[in-house]
Amino acid sequence: MSIRIGIIGYGNLGRGVECAVKQNPDMELAAVFTRRKPEDLQILTKSAAVCHVSEAAAWKDKIDVMILCGGSATDLPEQSPEFVKLFNIVDSFDTHAKIPTHFANVDTAAKEAGKIGIISVGWDPGMFSLNRMYASAILPNGKDYTFWGKGVSQGHSDAIRRIEGVKNAKQYTIPVEAALAAVREGKDPELSTREKHTRECFVVLEEGADASKVEQEIKTMPNYFADYDTTVHFVSEEELLRDHSGIPHGGFVLRSGKTGWEEENSHLIEYRLKLDSNPEFTSCVIVAYARAAYRLYKEGQSGAKTVFDIPPAYLSAKDGAALRAEML
Amino acid sequence: MSIRIGIIGYGNLGRGVECAVKQNPDMELAAVFTRRKPEDLQILTKSAAVCHVSEAAAWKDKIDVMILCGGSATDLPEQSPEFVKLFNIVDSFDTHAKIPTHFANVDTAAKEAGKIGIISVGWDPGMFSLNRMYASAILPNGKDYTFWGKGVSQGHSDAIRRIEGVKNAKQYTIPVEAALAAVREGKDPELSTREKHTRECFVVLEEGADASKVEQEIKTMPNYFADYDTTVHFVSEEELLRDHSGIPHGGFVLRSGKTGWEEENSHLIEYRLKLDSNPEFTSCVIVAYARAAYRLYKEGQSGAKTVFDIPPAYLSAKDGAALRAEML
Repeated sequence: MSIRIGIIGYGNLGRGVECAVKQNPDMELAAVFTRRKPEDLQILTKSAAVCHVSEAAAWKDKIDVMILCGGSATDLPEQSPEFVKLFNIVDSFDTHAKIPTHFANVDTAAKEAGKIGIISVGWDPGMFSLNRMYASAILPNGKDYTFWGKGVSQGHSDAIRRIEGVKNAKQYTIPVEAALAAVREGKDPELSTREKHTRECFVVLEEGADASKVEQEIKTMPNYFADYDTTVHFVSEEELLRDHSGIPHGGFVLRSGKTGWEEENSHLIEYRLKLDSNPEFTSCVIVAYARAAYRLYKEGQSGAKTVFDIPPAYLSAKDGAALRAEML
Repeated sequence: MSIRIGIIGYGNLGRGVECAVKQNPDMELAAVFTRRKPEDLQILTKSAAVCHVSEAAAWKDKIDVMILCGGSATDLPEQSPEFVKLFNIVDSFDTHAKIPTHFANVDTAAKEAGKIGIISVGWDPGMFSLNRMYASAILPNGKDYTFWGKGVSQGHSDAIRRIEGVKNAKQYTIPVEAALAAVREGKDPELSTREKHTRECFVVLEEGADASKVEQEIKTMPNYFADYDTTVHFVSEEELLRDHSGIPHGGFVLRSGKTGWEEENSHLIEYRLKLDSNPEFTSCVIVAYARAAYRLYKEGQSGAKTVFDIPPAYLSAKDGAALRAEML
């Protein structure tokens, strides 16, 4: 019997999960839950139901794993502890500083309900975290580096759009090649924020807006841009939609470390992602962990989990013998 | 109390394990076991004992994890099932085709004894296997590539040394840059053996040996060289020792895959290792898994395990809360 998946929230991430489920023959999409009017929502999977989120409880025995596709700012802190009372869940909570609190909230609710709640799944947090952890356990005497990009930062694009006179905008985060090269060469550089990434912005102005004023406002925006070398390009709405409508992302996790009795040997571990679609890749990671949630639950486990807690084999549709024969 | 480690076999790998234990404050080296005369063996750790391998059983209660540093051809198939009757063990069994049999043998013995036996730990099998597995679970619709090098292949170096007229030799396996580039660009190339790697040999001749005959013999050697583009350099013994005495290695695991309802988006996952010392890095991986073996045993688990079966957090000296706060 296949693993029955539910989706709460049908934005880019929800659609990505729907596509990922299609690629996994041991899973099926049971239903999508939305805050919109269900009759207004068109999904891609003909066999799946579309329901209002208020009806979710009625699906308690018809869904094995519920995937929460809301945002980390306001949706998930409420939804994850709430829905884990009814379902095994996977979320992509990505506010790094608030992960311990979120974990504790989900853990309490999940243990009471006897369910599994896997939080903060995706690529960062997620696969990048895993790679930071494996690499630092293997090379305890070393130094970590994470570079993001080249990719679209939704948060930075939004920040530009809030400036007066801006009609539309897209922001790319770009790793500095020289910094990456220095890390790869084992130089263990100390890198400032400015030395690690640059920011490139494509901005469509409102009619009559003052370009130099907008540019100045972007470049001096605290937290978002002031600490970076930022380039601003003004483009037409047409050009923005034509050349910058994708949501690519990716990045690099590196660890350089020393081994040997006198630390005479150097090593480099590098993990890289190059993604055409940030939400679709995130969804693929989430769906693999939904398989793990299902299996952990079947074993009788409960509580909150992260990528650190889950044996890799639980993500794969293959069994242990096949994995050992084909992949080890 | 720290985790008490034992080492069986004191070659490059055993010495690497000794160095890695030094870097992990929650571990201590208790004893090294050798087939040589113990009094002839000099180790680096002053506080550790050196014993004959026949005395190992007496250390049953004084060692938490025994690390087997013998070879895969003859040592480990006998030693791993034997020593797991007395100790939790970690080995680096790397004959891929025989892993299922080795796993079964260790599993039976480990379960009878109530011990943990983690097999095939290192970087390939090991970290490369893990990355192949994670990537294929995340991108089910994709293609895998593993490239090795640039690095020294001990097996190929040995094969050259067995040729008549050869005094000494070192062989490097080198990935073909154009093939790597094609994979990274998402071209999903079909690559023959010859298109993936080249082989470069540095050979010291015996006095009076026929260089062109030796070169011919290397280049046409079945399995080892015949399917590759091979370059042979004749060098003096002095040059070989000066420029080619290291044992670097490394390589790349890549997976390219498609996502989206119509598979319209491409993604690339790349894991790379660049290692000054193959045995020292392998040792670091083994020692991290020794920590996992200790913890699994303390939980009351038993049986054979591979890297696929072990939750990542078990490798780290940090606890779950610290990992979530600092690394997720």
